[in-house]
Amino acid sequence: MARNPQLNKNGELIHLLSTEGLSRDILTHILDTATNFVSVSDREVKKVPLLRGKSVFNLFFENSTRTRTTFDIAATRLSADVYTLDIARSSTAKGESLLDTIANLSAMAADIFVVRHSESGAPYLIAQHVAPHVHVVNAGDGRHAHPTQGMLDMYTIRHYKKDFSNLSVAIVGDVLHSRVARSDIHALTTLGCPDVRVVGPRTLVPSDLSHLGVRVCHTLEEGIKDCDVVITLRLQNERMSGALLPSSQEYFKSFGLTTERLRWAKPDAIVMHPGPINRGVEIESAVVDGPQSVILPQVTFGIAVRMAVLSIVAGNEA
Amino acid sequence: MARNPQLNKNGELIHLLSTEGLSRDILTHILDTATNFVSVSDREVKKVPLLRGKSVFNLFFENSTRTRTTFDIAATRLSADVYTLDIARSSTAKGESLLDTIANLSAMAADIFVVRHSESGAPYLIAQHVAPHVHVVNAGDGRHAHPTQGMLDMYTIRHYKKDFSNLSVAIVGDVLHSRVARSDIHALTTLGCPDVRVVGPRTLVPSDLSHLGVRVCHTLEEGIKDCDVVITLRLQNERMSGALLPSSQEYFKSFGLTTERLRWAKPDAIVMHPGPINRGVEIESAVVDGPQSVILPQVTFGIAVRMAVLSIVAGNEA
Amino acid sequence: MARNPQLNKNGELIHLLSTEGLSRDILTHILDTATNFVSVSDREVKKVPLLRGKSVFNLFFENSTRTRTTFDIAATRLSADVYTLDIARSSTAKGESLLDTIANLSAMAADIFVVRHSESGAPYLIAQHVAPHVHVVNAGDGRHAHPTQGMLDMYTIRHYKKDFSNLSVAIVGDVLHSRVARSDIHALTTLGCPDVRVVGPRTLVPSDLSHLGVRVCHTLEEGIKDCDVVITLRLQNERMSGALLPSSQEYFKSFGLTTERLRWAKPDAIVMHPGPINRGVEIESAVVDGPQSVILPQVTFGIAVRMAVLSIVAGNEA
Repeated sequence: MARNPQLNKNGELIHLLSTEGLSRDILTHILDTATNFVSVSDREVKKVPLLRGKSVFNLFFENSTRTRTTFDIAATRLSADVYTLDIARSSTAKGESLLDTIANLSAMAADIFVVRHSESGAPYLIAQHVAPHVHVVNAGDGRHAHPTQGMLDMYTIRHYKKDFSNLSVAIVGDVLHSRVARSDIHALTTLGCPDVRVVGPRTLVPSDLSHLGVRVCHTLEEGIKDCDVVITLRLQNERMSGALLPSSQEYFKSFGLTTERLRWAKPDAIVMHPGPINRGVEIESAVVDGPQSVILPQVTFGIAVRMAVLSIVAGNEA
Repeated sequence: MARNPQLNKNGELIHLLSTEGLSRDILTHILDTATNFVSVSDREVKKVPLLRGKSVFNLFFENSTRTRTTFDIAATRLSADVYTLDIARSSTAKGESLLDTIANLSAMAADIFVVRHSESGAPYLIAQHVAPHVHVVNAGDGRHAHPTQGMLDMYTIRHYKKDFSNLSVAIVGDVLHSRVARSDIHALTTLGCPDVRVVGPRTLVPSDLSHLGVRVCHTLEEGIKDCDVVITLRLQNERMSGALLPSSQEYFKSFGLTTERLRWAKPDAIVMHPGPINRGVEIESAVVDGPQSVILPQVTFGIAVRMAVLSIVAGNEA
Repeated sequence: MARNPQLNKNGELIHLLSTEGLSRDILTHILDTATNFVSVSDREVKKVPLLRGKSVFNLFFENSTRTRTTFDIAATRLSADVYTLDIARSSTAKGESLLDTIANLSAMAADIFVVRHSESGAPYLIAQHVAPHVHVVNAGDGRHAHPTQGMLDMYTIRHYKKDFSNLSVAIVGDVLHSRVARSDIHALTTLGCPDVRVVGPRTLVPSDLSHLGVRVCHTLEEGIKDCDVVITLRLQNERMSGALLPSSQEYFKSFGLTTERLRWAKPDAIVMHPGPINRGVEIESAVVDGPQSVILPQVTFGIAVRMAVLSIVAGNEA
C-alpha cells in the first residue's frame, strides 16, 4: 500500500493536503497546537519566533485575498518571511510549466509552499515533486479540499462543544461543489462525530454521498432538526441562476437559514459559515449577527489553526 | 453633544479621520511627535520598535501607490507588520459588504486600518464599527479629508516658518474638489494662522467658502500677494478639459505659478505641492526645482508625520 | 575621461548597472562575496543582519515576477525592508515623470533602487539623478544589460569549472535581443575567458559582433564543439513566428540543444539557461533534467549573487 503523501515514514505530518486519510491523533494534534497559538494574537507583541528566517511562499494560482491574507498573517506571526507571488502575471503566463515554477522556487531555498489552485489535485502534484526540505500546505484546490478551513471549523466546534462524540452536525448548501464541505466531512467522521448530515436541494446534494458516512437530507427541517452545529456554505454566484438552481431567492425560500428555522436545531446550536457571506441568500442577516453565530470566532481561530499547521509541517522532516 | 469619534473619553486621539474638530493641543502633539521621528529615517538602522508585533492593514479601496507606500514605510519603520490588501480584487468584489470585510479583518486581530476610499465618510463608518482594539487612520476619503497630508503640510510650514500666528498662507487651485485643501484649512485655522486664502477660478473656488474662515481670491496676484506660504494643488486630469475649465493651458495662463509671479509673494515664501506634480499646469518646472520649493522636504516629513499618527493612535485605548 | 558612473572616486562599486566597464577585481569581489552568502540559504535561520533597517525599493517598470522575487528574497535575507511598487498602476500613470517618481522615493529615505525597465539606459538615467545616499541595481533594461544574471552565470561557471583562463563558453540563441548574452560576454572577457562563442541563425546572431571579442558561429556543431559551458538563451515568444524566424520548430531543428548534439561539447560540459525555459524549443527536456544541467543551481546561486551585489553597493559611499 502506498504511503499517505502527507506523512513521513514515522507517520508525521510533512504536508497538509487534505483532512482525508489523516488519523484522529494527527487532527487532534493540530487542534491542540492551535490552542497554544490562540493567545498569541491577543498579546501586545503578536509574534513568536518559531519560523524565524524561514521562507514561506504564497502561491495563489486562483485568487483569494481573504485566505491569502490569513496565511500571510499566520506565517508573519510565526516570524517567517512571506513572499507572495502574483502567479497569474508571472512566468506561468510565459509558458513555463507548474513543475518548473515549483523547481525554481525550491532552488531559492523555500521552506513552505501555500498553494491555492483551481484544479483539484494540484497541491498533491506539487508535493510529489518538491525537494525534501519543502513542505506544501493546500489552501484550497478545485472542488477537492480546503483542509485548513476544515480544521478551523473543527477547532470552532471543539471550542464550543468540547467533544465530538455526541454531536449532530449539519452542513447546508452547495455540498456538491464545496471543498469546505468535503474537508469538514472527513475531519468530523475521523474525530468521531456520530451524526453528520448534508442538506440541500437534489441538484446540489446528490443522494449517493452516503459512502462518506453522512446522512443526506433534502429539506432544511429534517437536516438541522435537533442538531448542535449548523455549517452554512457560501452559494457561489455562478450557481445562483444556472442550471442547478432556479434563483438565489428560490434557494433562500427553501434552505436559507432564518432565526425562525434555526429553532429546529437545539437551542444552544452554533451557526458557522466559511465566508464571504451572501446575506439573505444562504443565511439571514439576523442569524449572522445573532447570539448563536460563531462566524467571527471562526476567523480568529483560523489564524491560530494556520499557525499550527505551518509550524507542525515545518518541524517534521521528509 | 455627540463626542468626536476620533477621541476617547479622555479626549485622546484613537482614530485620525479629519483635521476638523481636533484641538490645537492634539494637532501640536502630532507635530511634536513627528519631530522625534524625522531623525529615524537618517539613521543607519531606520527603525524603532514602537509598534513591534502590531498588525497594520492598508485598505486602499481607491488605488494610490504613493500614499500607500508612505504608510507602508512609516509602519515598517515603527517595526509593525504591514498587510496590504488588494481590495479591488478581493471579497468585496464577491459581494461582501464593507462592514463584513472590516469585521473579518478585525477578527484577525488587526491593530490599525489605514483606509483610502473614493467615498467621503467611509473611514468614519469603519471607525464606528470596529472593535475597541482597532484604530482607523484616514488616508483620503472622496473630497472630504486627507488628514495626514494636512498634517505633513503643517509640519513643513512650522519647520520653515516656526510659528503660525503671523502667517499668510495661500492655497491655489482646485479647492472645490480637494480633500487636501479642506484638511489644510481646518488645521491652519486651528493652529492659529490668521490669514488663509483660497485662490482659483470661480468654477473651482466657490465664493461661499468664507464660513471656513478663509478669504476667497479669484486672481493669483491678489491670492499670493505678500504671503509666506503658497500651497499649489494638483489639477486632476478629469478637470482639465471638462465643464469646469476650458483647458490646462488656460488654467496655467491665469493661475500657474511661475518664477515671475512668485515675486508677488514674500521673498522668503515657501512653495508646496502634495504631488504628483503636473509640471507646466499648476506650477512651472523652474519653481518646482527652485530655491523656494519645499516639495521634496514635504515628502520626507510625510513619513515622520505618519509614524507619529500611527504611534499616537496605537498608544491610546478606546 | 568621464568616470564610470558605477564607481565612486575610490573606484568602489556604488551602483551595478552593467558588467561592461567593471574591472576583473570588482567582478571577482562580487563572486567572492557571493560565496560567503551561499551557505546562508542553507541555514536554519536564513538571515544575516547586514542591511537591517535599510529600505530597498523594487521598481519594476517592466513586469518580471521571477527576477523581482529573487531580489525580494536576497534583500530580505540581508534583513532589509523591501517595498515593491506596482509602478504600472502608480503615479507614473498619472503623468509624473520617471525622475519625479525617483526624487520622491529618494525623499522617503530609500537606500537602494532595484530597477527593471523596458528601455535601455533607464537605470543609468536614474543613477545619475539619485541623491548620494541611494544606490541603483539594474535588474534588466531593454536589450542592454542584466548584470546580476550575468554575474550569477559567472558564479555558476566558476563553481563548476574553477578557473576562466582555459574555458570555451558558447552562448546559443537570440543573442541579438538578449541583455543576458550581452552581460555574460562582458563578464566572461573581463574574467579572462579566452574563447567565447555566440551561436545562432544569422537573423539572431549578426556577424559583426567580433568587436565584443567573441567568435560568431552559425551552426550549432561549430558553436559548441569541444566547449566547456553551453549557455542556452530563452527564445522570446514574439520572435518565434516573426520575421526573424520561420517557427519555433524550425529553430529547434537547427539550434535546439538535444542529448545527442550535446556530445559535440566536452563530456563534462555544463548546460545553463536563464529561465523560464521553453522545453522543446531552445532545449530538449532530457537535457534540462539531465546530469549536465546546472540550471537549478543557477537559481540558487542567483540569490547569493544578488545578496552580494546589494551588500557591496550599500557599503560604499558615493
